[in-house]
Amino acid sequence: MNERGRQAFADVMTFPAPEDATPATTRMLEFVFGDVWQRPVLTRRDRRFITLPCVAASDAEGPLRDHVYAALNSGDVSIVEMQETVLHFAVYGGWPKASRFNMVVDEQWDRIHRERGEQLPPAVPLLPLPTPSDPEARLRVGEQSFKDINCLPYAPTRDNPFQGAGILNFVFGEMWLRPGLGMKERRLITVACVAFQDAPYPILSHVYAALKSRDLSFDEMDELALHFAAYYGWPKASHLNQVIGEQKVRVLAEWAEEAAPL
Amino acid sequence: MNERGRQAFADVMTFPAPEDATPATTRMLEFVFGDVWQRPVLTRRDRRFITLPCVAASDAEGPLRDHVYAALNSGDVSIVEMQETVLHFAVYGGWPKASRFNMVVDEQWDRIHRERGEQLPPAVPLLPLPTPSDPEARLRVGEQSFKDINCLPYAPTRDNPFQGAGILNFVFGEMWLRPGLGMKERRLITVACVAFQDAPYPILSHVYAALKSRDLSFDEMDELALHFAAYYGWPKASHLNQVIGEQKVRVLAEWAEEAAPL
Amino acid sequence: MNERGRQAFADVMTFPAPEDATPATTRMLEFVFGDVWQRPVLTRRDRRFITLPCVAASDAEGPLRDHVYAALNSGDVSIVEMQETVLHFAVYGGWPKASRFNMVVDEQWDRIHRERGEQLPPAVPLLPLPTPSDPEARLRVGEQSFKDINCLPYAPTRDNPFQGAGILNFVFGEMWLRPGLGMKERRLITVACVAFQDAPYPILSHVYAALKSRDLSFDEMDELALHFAAYYGWPKASHLNQVIGEQKVRVLAEWAEEAAPL
Repeated sequence: MNERGRQAFADVMTFPAPEDATPATTRMLEFVFGDVWQRPVLTRRDRRFITLPCVAASDAEGPLRDHVYAALNSGDVSIVEMQETVLHFAVYGGWPKASRFNMVVDEQWDRIHRERGEQLPPAVPLLPLPTPSDPEARLRVGEQSFKDINCLPYAPTRDNPFQGAGILNFVFGEMWLRPGLGMKERRLITVACVAFQDAPYPILSHVYAALKSRDLSFDEMDELALHFAAYYGWPKASHLNQVIGEQKVRVLAEWAEEAAPL
Repeated sequence: MNERGRQAFADVMTFPAPEDATPATTRMLEFVFGDVWQRPVLTRRDRRFITLPCVAASDAEGPLRDHVYAALNSGDVSIVEMQETVLHFAVYGGWPKASRFNMVVDEQWDRIHRERGEQLPPAVPLLPLPTPSDPEARLRVGEQSFKDINCLPYAPTRDNPFQGAGILNFVFGEMWLRPGLGMKERRLITVACVAFQDAPYPILSHVYAALKSRDLSFDEMDELALHFAAYYGWPKASHLNQVIGEQKVRVLAEWAEEAAPL
Repeated sequence: MNERGRQAFADVMTFPAPEDATPATTRMLEFVFGDVWQRPVLTRRDRRFITLPCVAASDAEGPLRDHVYAALNSGDVSIVEMQETVLHFAVYGGWPKASRFNMVVDEQWDRIHRERGEQLPPAVPLLPLPTPSDPEARLRVGEQSFKDINCLPYAPTRDNPFQGAGILNFVFGEMWLRPGLGMKERRLITVACVAFQDAPYPILSHVYAALKSRDLSFDEMDELALHFAAYYGWPKASHLNQVIGEQKVRVLAEWAEEAAPL
C-alpha cells in the first residue's frame, strides 16, 4: 500500500517520495497522494490550480517550492499560466504572499532550465494591456465583467474606494480579463482562496458563480472540497462543503425557474 | 468501512455523523474519524488540545462549535481547562479569534446544562492572581519561567515592549503559570498554534522545548504532526514534520552530551 | 505608465523597484504603488500602519523586511512607534508571528544604522510601567479603558480567564494604554488585524469603535478597506467593506440620537 503512495507521489511531484517513516509522512503518501490525487472528476492539472493557492497561502516554503516545480516540470501548467496564477492569487490572497510566490516561480523556472541545460525563454511583454486605459471605459468594462463573472444582474457602486478603484477598476476591469489563464482555472483558484480566507459573502458568491456559470460542474466542486481539505484542513473544508450544498440547491432552483415555460 | 467512520465520529463528537454522501464528508468520516482519531500514542483527550486551537484558528464556526461541545460534553475537558485553553490560544493565535472561541465556549457550556436540565455552576473568581504584582518581581518570575519553559539558559532583554511588557510580564510572567491547565496540554496547544502561525523561530523553539522538557515524547510529537495535518492541511504539517525531525536530532545530541561522564 | 509605478515604489520603499517583467510584479507596481499608495485621505505614514500588520501576518519574510526597513528609513515611523506596533500586533495577530516581526525590526534598525555609519541609540527602559501594579486597581483601569476604547457602557466580567486575566488585566489594562503610539495608529493596526482574523464580533466592534470615537473618519475607514485589500486579499476586504457600511449606518443613527434635543 505504501508502495502505491510512493509511486503516486513521484508521479505528481516529478521527484521521489521522502524516505521517512513518521506517521505524518507515511499517511500523507497514502492518503493525499495515493488516494486524493488519484481520484476521478478533476484531472491532475485541475488539482494543481487548487493546490498552488493553498500552498502559497500556507507559508510553508518547502511545499510551495515543490509544488511550483512539479506543476511546471510535469508540463501540466505553462509558465504563462503559472504567472497569471500568481497575479490572480495576489488579488485573492494578498500581495505579500504573492510576492513570495512570484519569487519561487522565477527560482523554480530557472532551476528547471538549468537542470535541462536549456536557455530561459524571453518574458512575454506586458504591453499592450488587453483592457481600455480610459478610466470611464475601464469602469464600464469592469461593471460588465463583474456582472458576467459573478452571475449577478448588478454591479457595486463606483463611489467607494474599495469598490470603484479596487473591484471595478482593477479586479474585474483588468485582472479577470487577462488572457493566459482559462476561466475554469480562475474558478478553481478563486474558490480555493475564498475557502481559506472564508469571509462569509465571498465564499458564498464565488461558489455560486462557479456553479451557475457551469465553469465547474457539481461533481467537480465536490472534488474541489475534498482536495482542499487535504491542503487546508478539514474545518475550513467542512464549511466550504456546507456552502457548496446550499449553493447547489440555489442554482438548481434558478435553473428550474429559467427552464420553466413562460 | 463507512460504518466504522460513522461510529468513530459519534464517539468523538458525542452526536451522530452527518447524513451526506459528498466525497469531502465520506472521506472525512473514514480518514479523520475512522483513522486519525483512533490511532494510539495520543489519547482522545490529548487530541482535543490539538483540535481545539486548529478549529478556533480556522474561522469555521460550525466545526468550532461542534468540537467545543464534544470536548465538554464527553467530559474529556473540564470547563476550567477549556477556559484556560482560550486564554492560551489568545496569546498564540490572536485575540480576535480567541474572542469568538470564548463566546462559543460560554454558549456551548450553557447548552450542555440546558440539555441536561442542570444549573450553570458559578464562575471561579479571577483574584487573587497566582503571580506577583510588583513589576520588578513579576519580570523576575517571567525571566525564570521563560528559561524553564523554553529550556534555554537566557531570557530576552526587558527593554523592548514586545519582550518586556509582553513576553516577560504577561506571557511567561503570568499566562503560562496559571493553574488549571497542565503542562502537557499547554505544550499541545502551543505546538499546534506555532504550526499554523509558522513563523520560523517560534515553531523551532516550541517543538524543541516540548521535546527537551520531556513534556511530550518523540512519538507523541509525531502523532501531533499527523493530527495537525488533518485539521490544518498537509503543507503546514509537512513543515512541522521537518522541524520535528531536526529538533529530535538536536535534543538527542544534547541528552547524550548531558549523560556523558565528565 | 510603468515608469510611474516604479517611481512610486521607490518613493514608498526608499529603494529601487525590482527589475522584473512578470505580471505580478508589473501590475503590483502599477496598481499597489502607482495607484493605491498615491490615493488621498490617508497619508503615506497612515498607510504604513495598515501595511505592517498585513505583511507581518502574511509570513512573507521578504516583504516584511522591506516594509519595516521602508517605514523606519523614510522617517515615517519612529523606532518607539514601530516597537509598540509589534506589541499591539502580538495581541491582535498572535505572538509567534509577532516574534518574527520583532526580530525583523531589530535587524532592520541595525541595518539602517550600519548603512548610515551611525551608532544604535540605547533602548528605552521598560520600567516603570505606565499602569498600576495592584491587581484590583489594574482591573479597574482595564474596565474603564475597555469602555472608553470600545465606546461601550459595560465591561466584560472578570471571572473568566480570557476576559479577566487577558482582556482586562493585560490588553486594556496595559497594552492599549502604553504611551509611544497614538490612538489613530492603534486603530489602523487593530482594524487591519481584526480584518484578517475576521472573527465576526471583533471586526464589528473595532470598526464601530474606530468610527464612533472619531479616531478614524468615514473616508479614512473607506480608504483603509482598499489598502487592506491590496495587502490581504479581496475576500476578507470585501467582508470588511460590508461591515464598514453597516457600522456607518449605526454610528450615524447614534450621533443623530445624541444630537437630538431632549
